Amino acid sequence: MAAADRGPEPTTPAVAELVERHRETLDRALAAITARDYWSPYPEFPKAYGESAAADGKAAFEALLGKPFGLEQPGTDGETGGEVSPYGPELSIRYPHGDPDALVRAAQAAMPGWAAAGPLARAAVCLEILGRINARSHEFAQAVMHTTGQAYGMAFQAGGPHAQDRGLEAVAYAYAEQTRLPRQAGWTKPQGKRDPLVMEKTFTAVPRGVALLVGCNTFPTWNGYPGLFASLATGNPVIVKPHPRAVLPLALTVRIARQVLAEAGFDPDVVLLAAERPDEGLAKVLALRPEVRIIDYTGSSAFGEWLEANATQAQVYTEKAGVNTAVVESTDDYAGMLGNLAFSLSLYSGQMCTTPQNLLIPRGGIATDQGAKSFDEVVADLAAAIGKLLGDDARAASILGAVVNPGVAQRVERAADGGYGELALAPRTVAAPDFPDALVRTPALVKADAAKPDDAAAFLSECFGPVSFAVAVDSAADAVELLRRSVREQGAMTAAAWTTSAVVEQALVDACLDAGVSLSLNLTGGVYANQTAAFSDLHGTGANPAANSAYCDAAFVANRFRTVEVRRHR
Amino acid sequence: MAAADRGPEPTTPAVAELVERHRETLDRALAAITARDYWSPYPEFPKAYGESAAADGKAAFEALLGKPFGLEQPGTDGETGGEVSPYGPELSIRYPHGDPDALVRAAQAAMPGWAAAGPLARAAVCLEILGRINARSHEFAQAVMHTTGQAYGMAFQAGGPHAQDRGLEAVAYAYAEQTRLPRQAGWTKPQGKRDPLVMEKTFTAVPRGVALLVGCNTFPTWNGYPGLFASLATGNPVIVKPHPRAVLPLALTVRIARQVLAEAGFDPDVVLLAAERPDEGLAKVLALRPEVRIIDYTGSSAFGEWLEANATQAQVYTEKAGVNTAVVESTDDYAGMLGNLAFSLSLYSGQMCTTPQNLLIPRGGIATDQGAKSFDEVVADLAAAIGKLLGDDARAASILGAVVNPGVAQRVERAADGGYGELALAPRTVAAPDFPDALVRTPALVKADAAKPDDAAAFLSECFGPVSFAVAVDSAADAVELLRRSVREQGAMTAAAWTTSAVVEQALVDACLDAGVSLSLNLTGGVYANQTAAFSDLHGTGANPAANSAYCDAAFVANRFRTVEVRRHR
Repeated sequence: MAAADRGPEPTTPAVAELVERHRETLDRALAAITARDYWSPYPEFPKAYGESAAADGKAAFEALLGKPFGLEQPGTDGETGGEVSPYGPELSIRYPHGDPDALVRAAQAAMPGWAAAGPLARAAVCLEILGRINARSHEFAQAVMHTTGQAYGMAFQAGGPHAQDRGLEAVAYAYAEQTRLPRQAGWTKPQGKRDPLVMEKTFTAVPRGVALLVGCNTFPTWNGYPGLFASLATGNPVIVKPHPRAVLPLALTVRIARQVLAEAGFDPDVVLLAAERPDEGLAKVLALRPEVRIIDYTGSSAFGEWLEANATQAQVYTEKAGVNTAVVESTDDYAGMLGNLAFSLSLYSGQMCTTPQNLLIPRGGIATDQGAKSFDEVVADLAAAIGKLLGDDARAASILGAVVNPGVAQRVERAADGGYGELALAPRTVAAPDFPDALVRTPALVKADAAKPDDAAAFLSECFGPVSFAVAVDSAADAVELLRRSVREQGAMTAAAWTTSAVVEQALVDACLDAGVSLSLNLTGGVYANQTAAFSDLHGTGANPAANSAYCDAAFVANRFRTVEVRRHR
Repeated sequence: MAAADRGPEPTTPAVAELVERHRETLDRALAAITARDYWSPYPEFPKAYGESAAADGKAAFEALLGKPFGLEQPGTDGETGGEVSPYGPELSIRYPHGDPDALVRAAQAAMPGWAAAGPLARAAVCLEILGRINARSHEFAQAVMHTTGQAYGMAFQAGGPHAQDRGLEAVAYAYAEQTRLPRQAGWTKPQGKRDPLVMEKTFTAVPRGVALLVGCNTFPTWNGYPGLFASLATGNPVIVKPHPRAVLPLALTVRIARQVLAEAGFDPDVVLLAAERPDEGLAKVLALRPEVRIIDYTGSSAFGEWLEANATQAQVYTEKAGVNTAVVESTDDYAGMLGNLAFSLSLYSGQMCTTPQNLLIPRGGIATDQGAKSFDEVVADLAAAIGKLLGDDARAASILGAVVNPGVAQRVERAADGGYGELALAPRTVAAPDFPDALVRTPALVKADAAKPDDAAAFLSECFGPVSFAVAVDSAADAVELLRRSVREQGAMTAAAWTTSAVVEQALVDACLDAGVSLSLNLTGGVYANQTAAFSDLHGTGANPAANSAYCDAAFVANRFRTVEVRRHR
């Protein structure tokens, strides 16, 4: 439906102006989530933002360093901070620390005005927030790069326009859901010879309550925006609790949101930052507050499961750990497959929840357009493809980014020492231009055998970071069953497979439908298993232990609001 | 959208025939949930079912009594039963008792075939089940009457066509949600001067897992069908655990569903009956099974809250207890208001989760078209209206039905003894024609004062059954605040109000939006606060403690399935 169709009219000139400005984008987003073809209003090419944009963004980022982060919020009782860039420098930005009681009270106080604005006004305000974030994508790229370790190019795209796409997608879904019932409807029930019963009914979307966003270290904006904007667009105030290592991208987001809200005549406390002190455990404290009715979380399975089991007063949306599987059964484009896999394993040093971890390869080898390849040949050729992709340090660093945190560094060290098994490809240390203190490592490729229990114990738990396993399996059927079992037991955000056999393809599709994971088949070009496109691809399914929801579908937004009906005789 | 648009084509002639038979009804239901005007494919007038239908239904019901209930299911390990009609007779029907392990295994085994059928085939099978139930509405009316105590007319309508409407509504929502993404979509992303990236994507709805329906005593079909059909239509097998006092209506439902499933070529174990032994606590056992991923429940707050807190592996949809408020502030149709309220309080002896319990009336009296009426006059006039409505025993019994269980009987006794406070109207015992053993009582109307803590303690907890409180409040504003507080703290399924003041009306609407309860305003004719119409009215909101979901909206179905995507280069 078009955005103009439904919802109360904007009530102030400022809101009306925002609706006017963003109506076409909202309409196009509504069409895009239905058609699922490629679409984005936010250019992904850095140069689209102007000649000086990159330099301006860098300067804006650098101006933030070593200072208090200006953000006037209720209940501020001190400062906190301490982010260190994975590229070396300490950011030394000091964020306001808020008293949890005061934050919850402020969010609650801000809710009625935001709830009363209605779906269209809220969508317009959200699009204005996203538009202003978009205009500062180079500054956000710096902030994402220096908190996550992503290389600049990726930090720009994934942390900027692609994250904004996911935010806009959530706004579109939220608007569509809230306007599915008519604002007003007549009801006429015949009564035989008597006069009919005639009623007039109004349906109003009301927010659920205070929302909590618990941010993650690796993709603070990309994983944060769907929940943030889904909650906002459905009328809920949001308390944003960033990961302590990745505060800045969400702090900038909160500041922009508060500015836009205030300018549009709303209480800026609709969005609040809850930066935490070291070891404060603020997410746990906030998650159990009875006023908190929605929680969005990305991170470890342990805390995600804790939230699901304990924050039962809230709707909890989690994305947790998983073990992603790729099946390598046969291909008619061996070089394309190897190149695609090499890039998938290398991108951001495998520090994506979507990176393939286990490559299942029949021990008898595979058929390819370059003839039969033995298991060892496939593994060696893949190792060579990775080596070639990452042969040049500058190019390698632009793909790998930096190791995000000590946990990943430890796993790389363990892999390098043979701690996960025999290495088919040893990780190499890369010197990152301009950042001598950055820890940049190429992926480790470990050989494993599905028939050996010790190997299986290693590859069947998540090994987050640049460590993958080339796993020998008995057959294609064995690979399919191992894929199914992994997804069911360990969860998975992605699955990938290469096969030229219609029978194997059908078995793979069946296993993925059965176990609940989305499948990328025979990727050999510029689309990678670890990437999804907003408005078209779903990120996750919510059907296996790795996540209980997906970006973005109706289920992600439909329960963030409820509908209240008023009926009268007409 | 029209039902023809999307979803895999039916794969067998039997399924194709069902699709052909029910496509128009599905399309009309899809249109109805969008338009929200009056619509139903199931006639609510008993005579619409033919001259002999009532007698045939009674004969069919009587043929069930005193016998084993024929139902071949896996894992049957004995018999259970013991229903006693609130109208007196023991039903003496013996149901198969199933081993919980075997039931869960059978449901799991039945899932893949049902999952593979796709949304359109499932919708058609569900509509065939509903159609066959509809044809036997008089038999269901007997079954509902003699398990719930509803009078025959109500048992026919609420237990028959109106319940079927709610089931069909859930099927329509489920179909609409599952077909919101295209089955297949192309994706073409421009790459500047290079060839575009071109992908083909398929989206498949997959079920969540085994669903559990925990039935209730008073409305086994009306409250059971939304969850049952929402789960079925989204591909989940359903284990139906009826209330031990109201097994028959759901056992009949299960038997019909299994017949239709088998005839259409599906495993009948897609629907299973789990009748329990006395004090077996089967709902608790099944609710915690890891395979159980969806639970629908109607009943006490204690067990509903236990499910929400403990069955965290499942999506839990609950309808629990609440305290429904009606505000009587002013009216331009005093007689109409009194008549409407009298009927609302009397219908099914107030044993509806939607019956108004507390009538808030300014202690200074109210303005009416018959002049100013003091608090005592309003209460006395309402008592007189109830007395007049129920003056004739046969007519009274046809409205009141019978007291459903000993808990309600005890509360009526307590009210009659003045245990809740001063009586404005004493409950009277009614002799039900044909059923000398039925306990039929007229409502008690208790006078209370909001300013007195003892009174407030009594009327601010749910007093399920024919006991209402006429509560003196200081002012309209006081009434609005008490309404808001009751809904927030005790929960409510309904709110009603009578006012001629635009200011009071706005305050009431604001309070209801704020506290999350739907509001019926100034009802004076044949629409009652305790009744909602499928395809138009939402039953409950999910926004207050009385329920965490509503019949029926997208949120009620959207998370009963997940979407798995498969993408390939085109």
